[in-house]
Amino acid sequence: MRVYLDCLPCFLRQALDAARRATDDERTQREVLDRVASTIPAFPLDVTPIEVGREIYRTVREVTGVDDPYRETKRADNERVIALLPQLRETIRRSPDPLHSALTLAAAGNLIDFGAHSVVDLDRAIEKGLENGEKMADYPQLEERLASVDDVLYLGDNAGELVLDKLVVEQLVDRGKRVTFVVRGRPIINDVTVEDAAFVGMDDVAEVISSGSDGPGTALRRCRPAFVDAFRRAKLILSKGQGNFEGLSDERAPLFFLLTVKCPVVARELGTEIGRTVLRAQGSRGESG
Amino acid sequence: MRVYLDCLPCFLRQALDAARRATDDERTQREVLDRVASTIPAFPLDVTPIEVGREIYRTVREVTGVDDPYRETKRADNERVIALLPQLRETIRRSPDPLHSALTLAAAGNLIDFGAHSVVDLDRAIEKGLENGEKMADYPQLEERLASVDDVLYLGDNAGELVLDKLVVEQLVDRGKRVTFVVRGRPIINDVTVEDAAFVGMDDVAEVISSGSDGPGTALRRCRPAFVDAFRRAKLILSKGQGNFEGLSDERAPLFFLLTVKCPVVARELGTEIGRTVLRAQGSRGESG
Repeated sequence: MRVYLDCLPCFLRQALDAARRATDDERTQREVLDRVASTIPAFPLDVTPIEVGREIYRTVREVTGVDDPYRETKRADNERVIALLPQLRETIRRSPDPLHSALTLAAAGNLIDFGAHSVVDLDRAIEKGLENGEKMADYPQLEERLASVDDVLYLGDNAGELVLDKLVVEQLVDRGKRVTFVVRGRPIINDVTVEDAAFVGMDDVAEVISSGSDGPGTALRRCRPAFVDAFRRAKLILSKGQGNFEGLSDERAPLFFLLTVKCPVVARELGTEIGRTVLRAQGSRGESG
Repeated sequence: MRVYLDCLPCFLRQALDAARRATDDERTQREVLDRVASTIPAFPLDVTPIEVGREIYRTVREVTGVDDPYRETKRADNERVIALLPQLRETIRRSPDPLHSALTLAAAGNLIDFGAHSVVDLDRAIEKGLENGEKMADYPQLEERLASVDDVLYLGDNAGELVLDKLVVEQLVDRGKRVTFVVRGRPIINDVTVEDAAFVGMDDVAEVISSGSDGPGTALRRCRPAFVDAFRRAKLILSKGQGNFEGLSDERAPLFFLLTVKCPVVARELGTEIGRTVLRAQGSRGESG
């Protein structure tokens, strides 16, 4: 998916959010905005938003001198969802289709973007996600594909929801699959890193590898070769969140996108609406969100 | 109220919205965004958003060559609300306090910003506004002030809701007041002009004058002297909408602000939340929205 004009104001908003997390000094925040704004005329529109995103967050780091403004938010989000685990595991255990329930929870958890939501919101997001669960219309296709593979490549997105991703991975392992869980190559927004994966014990159930991406998503030409190899060889790829969708929506690969739709551009690309939780097989069109 | 950093991404979003209304050509739209973005580093933060707004919409006009991108939207919004008049008049007629009901409708109609809402949304906005009506906590102060004046200066905001403003003006006239209704000095976004006022018959019930403002609100130093004189002499000023609030929130004057809160910055200034309809006397603080 390419950058749309709608993305430009949004990039500025994201820069402000990151700058505010990095520093309380309004002049420094302003400098971040000015730097990002002055680069807008040079933004190419034929790249993915991921690639612009990495430049923006690099600017934030350079101007504020803070390497990882979302560090504490990520830790708090992970801890918050870990605290909900007993009740979430119980929900899954009682479900007639535990994998479906875990996927639904993980999709709903994709609302935890930027750590902007409180515990109450998280509970509500999960509830809402469960209500929307039956709408994950490409689930039969996923089950069918799953029956014919031994390995799953799972592309993580954000901290917090990472704990819910682990619930999905556990279900896949229960079905006898080997799972490789992919994290970003460095801290970027609230995206998952090797440290986050270790913190939630993802390496107990999956092999954790880095994509090498320093952007907020997966744009293959910005990833390390070892990951690109794994991606090309994979028979089933579960791609979590908007960032990975933005980078991979045009790739020919056995992809299933699992996300909550949070912006009008992604909603348009997917032919659905903001706020919907979506499980979408690559190449399938129309309303399945 | 001054410009906050939150306003900068929003200015870019507004520029895109206006550019898209002016032209379908994406390259021209992009040029508007680039021009506005490149001026961001020079934006002063010690002026009101109105003053930045006028520069932005001037850029849109210059780049697109379209003088009034919202012309058709405004006409459609006015017509749409005129069509609802019989039912709205009936609501007011049956109300135990017709002025209060008219004010509530007019505040709810302030959601019709940028003409983004359909008829269904308008109905819902009005319903929602009526539900929120009892929250207009400064209404007793307004009534008290009203009892001691002969003249009311009413600062209009947007087309569409203009028809609801007329319902308020009618109630004021019923109470024996003379009303002067103020419009912008030129077309700017979907703000009311002399033409709009004539279209809805505002001049049947009020004297219509122009503030001379070419920005999307009322910043006194950008208004014509005759209006500033009228403003300074006024004993009661009803100021409609966010744009007028942004320009006048720091003025010492017998102001009552009537609006739906639509952005986080205005919400913070008013100590209330997005989506609330507010009647706020100048100088009164705390939760009255």
